[in-house]
Amino acid sequence: MLDVADARQNILDRCELLASTELVMLQAFGQRVLAQTVSATINVPGWDNSAMDGYAVNVADLQNITALPVSQTIAAGTHPQPLAAATVARIFTGAPVPEGADAVEMQENTRVRDDGCVEFVNSVKPGANIRRCGQDIKAGDQVVARGARLQAQHVGLLASVGVSEVQVYKPLRVAVLSTGDELAEPGEALEPGQIYNSNRYMLLCLLEQLGFEALDGGQVADDFDSTCAQLQAVSANADIVISSGGVSVGDEDHVKAAVETIGQLDLWKIAVKPGKPLAFGHLDSASGAVPFFGLPGNPVSAFVTFLLFVQPYLLKAQGLSEYLPSMLSATADFSWPAVDKKPGKREEYLRARCSGVGRRVEIYPNQSSGVLSSVSWSNCLARVPAGVRIEPGDEIEILPLSI
Amino acid sequence: MLDVADARQNILDRCELLASTELVMLQAFGQRVLAQTVSATINVPGWDNSAMDGYAVNVADLQNITALPVSQTIAAGTHPQPLAAATVARIFTGAPVPEGADAVEMQENTRVRDDGCVEFVNSVKPGANIRRCGQDIKAGDQVVARGARLQAQHVGLLASVGVSEVQVYKPLRVAVLSTGDELAEPGEALEPGQIYNSNRYMLLCLLEQLGFEALDGGQVADDFDSTCAQLQAVSANADIVISSGGVSVGDEDHVKAAVETIGQLDLWKIAVKPGKPLAFGHLDSASGAVPFFGLPGNPVSAFVTFLLFVQPYLLKAQGLSEYLPSMLSATADFSWPAVDKKPGKREEYLRARCSGVGRRVEIYPNQSSGVLSSVSWSNCLARVPAGVRIEPGDEIEILPLSI
Repeated sequence: MLDVADARQNILDRCELLASTELVMLQAFGQRVLAQTVSATINVPGWDNSAMDGYAVNVADLQNITALPVSQTIAAGTHPQPLAAATVARIFTGAPVPEGADAVEMQENTRVRDDGCVEFVNSVKPGANIRRCGQDIKAGDQVVARGARLQAQHVGLLASVGVSEVQVYKPLRVAVLSTGDELAEPGEALEPGQIYNSNRYMLLCLLEQLGFEALDGGQVADDFDSTCAQLQAVSANADIVISSGGVSVGDEDHVKAAVETIGQLDLWKIAVKPGKPLAFGHLDSASGAVPFFGLPGNPVSAFVTFLLFVQPYLLKAQGLSEYLPSMLSATADFSWPAVDKKPGKREEYLRARCSGVGRRVEIYPNQSSGVLSSVSWSNCLARVPAGVRIEPGDEIEILPLSI
Repeated sequence: MLDVADARQNILDRCELLASTELVMLQAFGQRVLAQTVSATINVPGWDNSAMDGYAVNVADLQNITALPVSQTIAAGTHPQPLAAATVARIFTGAPVPEGADAVEMQENTRVRDDGCVEFVNSVKPGANIRRCGQDIKAGDQVVARGARLQAQHVGLLASVGVSEVQVYKPLRVAVLSTGDELAEPGEALEPGQIYNSNRYMLLCLLEQLGFEALDGGQVADDFDSTCAQLQAVSANADIVISSGGVSVGDEDHVKAAVETIGQLDLWKIAVKPGKPLAFGHLDSASGAVPFFGLPGNPVSAFVTFLLFVQPYLLKAQGLSEYLPSMLSATADFSWPAVDKKPGKREEYLRARCSGVGRRVEIYPNQSSGVLSSVSWSNCLARVPAGVRIEPGDEIEILPLSI
């Protein structure tokens, strides 16, 4: 059996960038993955400007007197005259500091006299309340690197250097296939022995949360030839195909045989719980090999296996520079395993809740992988390394579930 | 000056649910906010079923012999016959356990003899590898509560109990107005004294990340009558209006006067840095009072003020049960303020990065609020309470920036 980190690395070693690029406009930057590194072409700010509403002054003029007349008013967006000798300029936040001024005093520290002169209450230091040209960004500086997912703060930064369009990676098309004769669709009545298909909607939602184009490949047919035809049809339109169920030893359906006929499939035995062997291979299509993942049919196992192995692969193939699961340190508020049990031989991911302040972690009472409500209750998965017993107070790692 | 928590509470006390509801289908559950509490109408699983591929057996039959013949094969989705006495049933994961069987032995612990009988290598305990009816969820159990944002795990859980449609809150329409004569649009050349409008795109992106319908209200005109007309037009189509810039003391534009004419506006002095006074009020429209927020024009201040005050208000108005900022505990790897400075009188939010494992927090070298690149570099804001000096190793609170 491979341990989790080795299995993930093996899978990632086989992962290539699959996304093509497209040009998008500023209004559509949000959540897109940058396909180019962007450098600034301007200084920000582009000139020395005022950090306050107040008065621009040449400090040397205040050596012997404490009040000066106002010679101009400078609003943001205007182009000021040089400061006349022995005068001040009324200035507003963001407005350019005039030539000849070397400080701005905030208005709260001044008083306008009856004769219109401005009196300075405190001494003023050269450079006070001036934001310097290029203080934020210098022309040529790298602003955002290729592989970043553009969030609001990146979008703001790109806009602030005048960038109105960038190359991004097109979202990969990821198809989801469901297998299992026992599956009924939500909204329909259950026949004896049937259960509702939850993986289909859970996986499609996971893919959408991550920014992929999620394709519903439907329910796999129950004979070999139809399954082959369905896999071929799906792989013609998808960049990556994921099935849930149908690829374990003993599974009574045709996905495994069909994938092996159309392409190639490996079963990976990974020392992880929950999780059965993960199937990883490809489907040969007219446009080349389409990567194929076979997840366990059990929804909790499918969820955990997706997060640990499939998500990093998808994010890397999409061009993201950060694709590994983001583990956080936290403190256990639980014991695991139960006192009468030995530590497991497989790395475990317990369904858990971490309180933000204090970062104490409690676990869902029923850790059976049959219990999907455990995942819904959780806000993280708590990692228990193989062979390790966790006691309250132990420092552990968690994988947050909010994406 | 109000402290941050009091100011937020004051603002939230004035916040009512503004979202109306609509019915959505399962495929569109993702990221929506649940407007009803959903309870299960079925047991999950609906019957005792096998947790393994293996053999269903009546343990009492193995008291004297270790091999039994196979009387039936039970696949998932089928309805089995009662188990014939002194036989076993071949059974697959998820398939119903037949009446008369009280355990399942995994196939790895069995051997099929030449005569077709199944030999049991180990002793089998009653109840082994059986998932009990209702073990995950009992009919009547609450599954997901009103006010939850539906993520993949909730969608999977709802599907697993057969829910194909739910009532959700319609996304609020939130309009963004930009003020400032000095603003140029990204993509255009800068005139002397101009800067690029970054707040517009940063705020629209923040709103989209949070699931709102973001409306671009454009740039505010530069005379009072046009500003009034523009605010009235925007408030007729929006549930909430946000402006950036234009509402501080001394600002040279017409938003403040226009809001006070059309509705009402309070300037809140909050002890927070970065952040100027936050303006909060409403615009009177034909359909009632439309809440109005006036953010600082400085992009870093606008970003921080949005996260601390506007976001909680918007999330509460949208119907989310969890709307407060999610602070996390972490450990400082920095000193603040500098040794030659006194701790501040205002609560500060430093632009910072937290490493997941270890949860050590470093801060961006330049904490000037003019520096938007600091926010882009960060993955969290580090909270420094008023009057407190932070030293390396101190336990602090951070606000993660990924949404």
